Amino acid sequence: MAELVAKYPDRFPGFVASLPMNNMDACLKEVDRAIQQLGARGVQIFSNVNGRPLDEPEFRPLFERLATHDLPIWLHPARPATFADYPTEKKSRYEMWWVFGWPYETSVAMGRLVFAGIFDAFPNLKIITHHTGAMVPYFEGRVAAGLDQIGERTPEQDADLVKTNIRRRPIDYFRMFYADTAVFGAVAALECGIAFFGVDRVLFGTDMPFDPEKGPGFIRETIRCIEDASVAPSDRQKIYEGNARRLLKLPAK
Amino acid sequence: MAELVAKYPDRFPGFVASLPMNNMDACLKEVDRAIQQLGARGVQIFSNVNGRPLDEPEFRPLFERLATHDLPIWLHPARPATFADYPTEKKSRYEMWWVFGWPYETSVAMGRLVFAGIFDAFPNLKIITHHTGAMVPYFEGRVAAGLDQIGERTPEQDADLVKTNIRRRPIDYFRMFYADTAVFGAVAALECGIAFFGVDRVLFGTDMPFDPEKGPGFIRETIRCIEDASVAPSDRQKIYEGNARRLLKLPAK
Repeated sequence: MAELVAKYPDRFPGFVASLPMNNMDACLKEVDRAIQQLGARGVQIFSNVNGRPLDEPEFRPLFERLATHDLPIWLHPARPATFADYPTEKKSRYEMWWVFGWPYETSVAMGRLVFAGIFDAFPNLKIITHHTGAMVPYFEGRVAAGLDQIGERTPEQDADLVKTNIRRRPIDYFRMFYADTAVFGAVAALECGIAFFGVDRVLFGTDMPFDPEKGPGFIRETIRCIEDASVAPSDRQKIYEGNARRLLKLPAK
Repeated sequence: MAELVAKYPDRFPGFVASLPMNNMDACLKEVDRAIQQLGARGVQIFSNVNGRPLDEPEFRPLFERLATHDLPIWLHPARPATFADYPTEKKSRYEMWWVFGWPYETSVAMGRLVFAGIFDAFPNLKIITHHTGAMVPYFEGRVAAGLDQIGERTPEQDADLVKTNIRRRPIDYFRMFYADTAVFGAVAALECGIAFFGVDRVLFGTDMPFDPEKGPGFIRETIRCIEDASVAPSDRQKIYEGNARRLLKLPAK
């Protein structure tokens, strides 16, 4: 990746590192090597580590390290068909594990990080969530008034399941994430995502090449949505380029 | 419920029935009794039946019966904390099972019904989905271009998991559902839901009394959102009242 960026700087303005999340010592070394020696502009992680949630204390040093480097973490969902949708079944049918399961995964990972106090510990941490913030913008109302009542749906004997020391309303922390524009072509959804995170926290992203055309489709549709969305031209430029230049610390053109 | 409607017609213009889904014979009898003898204007079911998906053939007669009566089915999510979010855990933490799990449940139930061909069998079936269509409007792009490629993410030996005989694009069927306005106060989300389903398929609903004020909060916030949403006044009236009068076959005022 570093070689590609060096060779084709006009086409690849930067890259991010993949990490061995099953070994935190090696992971932190790779973060430093990728950023300091290879020039990586951040890292990508998945929404769970071999089925374990990201808020387990073992993973905390990774978030601390990226906060120290002041470079972003891309959060990508991961969920297989073997995560069944019904207790009476062994696998998820009709690729529901993908179409809805992946955004669910991202959303729960966000929730776990919020309630574990990741943004109290590292207020400047930058986490870019895939699929335009997953379920959070559309369910802003549930996250807000709903999670303000956390604990009320949980019986006393399960109180440890909802124990948290966060200092502000849950919704305030959910707004501290960043989001890409990868809603695959849906203007109203993109507007909803931008309304939730604000124009300074939405970055161009397409999920290329996973469209039916195997490449150009989602790029074209994403650009169309950004053009059609009710957004000021200067804000559009932030989404296309400015926010990325700022977060990735790329030089201005 | 029938007595309340009879006693306070100005306050309760109609009611819907609850059903014994664990016994289809009794269920169908109760549908007919509730509608024909008591005047119910439809039924409410949950997104699973004791953990079983709604597209199991055993439940098909219920959908047929409501299509015959030409009255709506309200689809409400159900999912407990014991549906864990990670294979390494026994329960869902921080009420994620509720805030994101419930809309996931509704979305998967919609997907199962779509791919089982419920709308090919009963094109006039009216299913009103809770929380403004759950995840479907925000992930319109995933449902559209994503599920157009159904099967491509599934290995050959699991081909039965994605087998379907539906005649049109999956997205076309997802648009045949109806949705309530219960996004708990989020204008952009409501606009996204209306954009997806169209103004003729969105009906006023609030989830009262589950707001922090235990009643008035979600009603007030939902009305505020409908007023603030970019919707023509005549369309607003459809959402408040007209669509419900049509679907529930209530007399015009």
